[in-house]
Amino acid sequence: MQKQWRLAARPEGIPDASHFELTEVSIPALEPGKAVVKTLYLGVAPVMLRYMRNETEFESPLALGSVMPGRGVAQVIESDCDGLPVGAIVQARVGWQEYALIDTSDRPAPFLLPTDLPLSHGIGAVSLSGITALIGVREIGLVKATDRILVSGAAGGVGSHVAEIAKALGAQSVVGIAGGPEKCRRLTTEMGYDTVIDYKHDNVDAALDDAFPEGIDLYFDNVGGPLLDNVLGRLRRRARIAICGSISEYLVDSKDKHRFVNLQNLGRQDAKMEGFFVFDYEQVYPDCIETLADWVRAGALHPVEDISEGIETMPQALADLYLGKNIGVRMVKVGEPDLPLP
Amino acid sequence: MQKQWRLAARPEGIPDASHFELTEVSIPALEPGKAVVKTLYLGVAPVMLRYMRNETEFESPLALGSVMPGRGVAQVIESDCDGLPVGAIVQARVGWQEYALIDTSDRPAPFLLPTDLPLSHGIGAVSLSGITALIGVREIGLVKATDRILVSGAAGGVGSHVAEIAKALGAQSVVGIAGGPEKCRRLTTEMGYDTVIDYKHDNVDAALDDAFPEGIDLYFDNVGGPLLDNVLGRLRRRARIAICGSISEYLVDSKDKHRFVNLQNLGRQDAKMEGFFVFDYEQVYPDCIETLADWVRAGALHPVEDISEGIETMPQALADLYLGKNIGVRMVKVGEPDLPLP
Repeated sequence: MQKQWRLAARPEGIPDASHFELTEVSIPALEPGKAVVKTLYLGVAPVMLRYMRNETEFESPLALGSVMPGRGVAQVIESDCDGLPVGAIVQARVGWQEYALIDTSDRPAPFLLPTDLPLSHGIGAVSLSGITALIGVREIGLVKATDRILVSGAAGGVGSHVAEIAKALGAQSVVGIAGGPEKCRRLTTEMGYDTVIDYKHDNVDAALDDAFPEGIDLYFDNVGGPLLDNVLGRLRRRARIAICGSISEYLVDSKDKHRFVNLQNLGRQDAKMEGFFVFDYEQVYPDCIETLADWVRAGALHPVEDISEGIETMPQALADLYLGKNIGVRMVKVGEPDLPLP
Repeated sequence: MQKQWRLAARPEGIPDASHFELTEVSIPALEPGKAVVKTLYLGVAPVMLRYMRNETEFESPLALGSVMPGRGVAQVIESDCDGLPVGAIVQARVGWQEYALIDTSDRPAPFLLPTDLPLSHGIGAVSLSGITALIGVREIGLVKATDRILVSGAAGGVGSHVAEIAKALGAQSVVGIAGGPEKCRRLTTEMGYDTVIDYKHDNVDAALDDAFPEGIDLYFDNVGGPLLDNVLGRLRRRARIAICGSISEYLVDSKDKHRFVNLQNLGRQDAKMEGFFVFDYEQVYPDCIETLADWVRAGALHPVEDISEGIETMPQALADLYLGKNIGVRMVKVGEPDLPLP
């Protein structure tokens, strides 16, 4: 038998345990062309609230009673699939459950993880969080050595990687915004940020004046809302804004949504603002994972992880994202490998 | 002697003749490394109001009493410059005057025009208006055959070229927005638009619903403001907005500027919004001019020009842009070539 979490109710605000049901079911049997995997780590992502509310057009509708979707690190324990050998460690769409039947026709397809690094990195730094940070900085942000760079949500799952990745690509200095002294302290001590702004305690406008007397070249946006508008008013010529997420918007009623006044500055400054979705970049995952793993091995990238133990902690792990409680990549350790690593 | 227009006062609203002074001065003498040219056509551009108000950071400050800056088509009549032979037809920063001393160190540098096409095209279709349309559609808009395309300011100097350029690049159908029946009629009869929306007479929201039941892939924006916000609410996944101009904003007080409510849709739809300035693309001008001239020769691009006679009409030509009076590329014919064309 195995445990799994199912969607029990659609949340209006921040999801909690009442929106899920923990059930016990059989471990799935192997099917032709597929693999059975044991879940080791599960990740959480802000977009999950939109799945729970059935608001996203990117996935099939999520019916009440369905197993919660989500990606994790897992070990292949039975396989009828050439690309997924028994024992291999994969990042795959396993859902919130201890065992899963996976399929290489999933999009993005399951991918193999390096096994010389902590397996938890397969949720964060050498996986979709790291790839998201890398694509945002390199493909969308077109980072240059002379860029004046700002990152919001800097202590979050993606933001915690952005400063070190920007520097690995040549950036000289990166400013991060986060909420609270503990997050801000760790931005500089563990995540490579040079200057930090605490939006809960600092005067953000004055702090941005100080940090960017000549304006901003590159903004990696994880929050949207009024801060994005403020940054739009500070763009330098040919600036770039990479919109990774707008978590501040998920919990806001449409009538209370921010009304942007500085948007026309994009045109005035010949600047670019671009949203991106990591699933659209599947063709570059192998190259990105190799790059990210090499940076971790070389000590250029120091993943910060925020791990709770046991699949029972999944609802809290997800809620922590909207409560702003996580520092680094929030994940849950679900199990240990049964077989030797390849 | 020659006539020239100088800046006499900084306009608050739409500029008129009272903001300029028409003076008579000598024709400039040749200087080493330069060329003396005779002006044939002068163009006008929305950005000129910002020069007059001293609001732009792209040019040196424009002092009261200065000759109005601007680019034109001219013939070289004396030269001490290898790249500018006597008799050649050039597009150059001549200013609002009948004769000018030009210099290849200007940026963008003077460039030679084809002489088998009407010389007036050197103000529009085979010059900066056409290049702006081409860069907006191709480099910024990344046009694809299946794109659902909308163009605002469609009857203007740039917009009048956009539909035909998009189609030359493979687009199947283009929708244009303009104000008034005469402009809208000519959008379909002369400028290659398939569907038109008259923002002065149609219900724009309903017309956009009809024209784009599945949303918009590419928006070529010449106006900014509420229409841009409306389009932001209709973006398809990976849509692109090329911000060419925001003429609706130039004459609006900051307190009355539009407050955008649909901006976060950029992030949700993994879409891009990018401003661009044709002067940043100088390295591709020769290639663009060749492409545009070939399309004119092949009958794929039909330049629509709106020409008044005599340098005395320059203030009205500029005012017409803000009054929305021009159809196609507004320009002034200033003189005839003195020498045979090369």
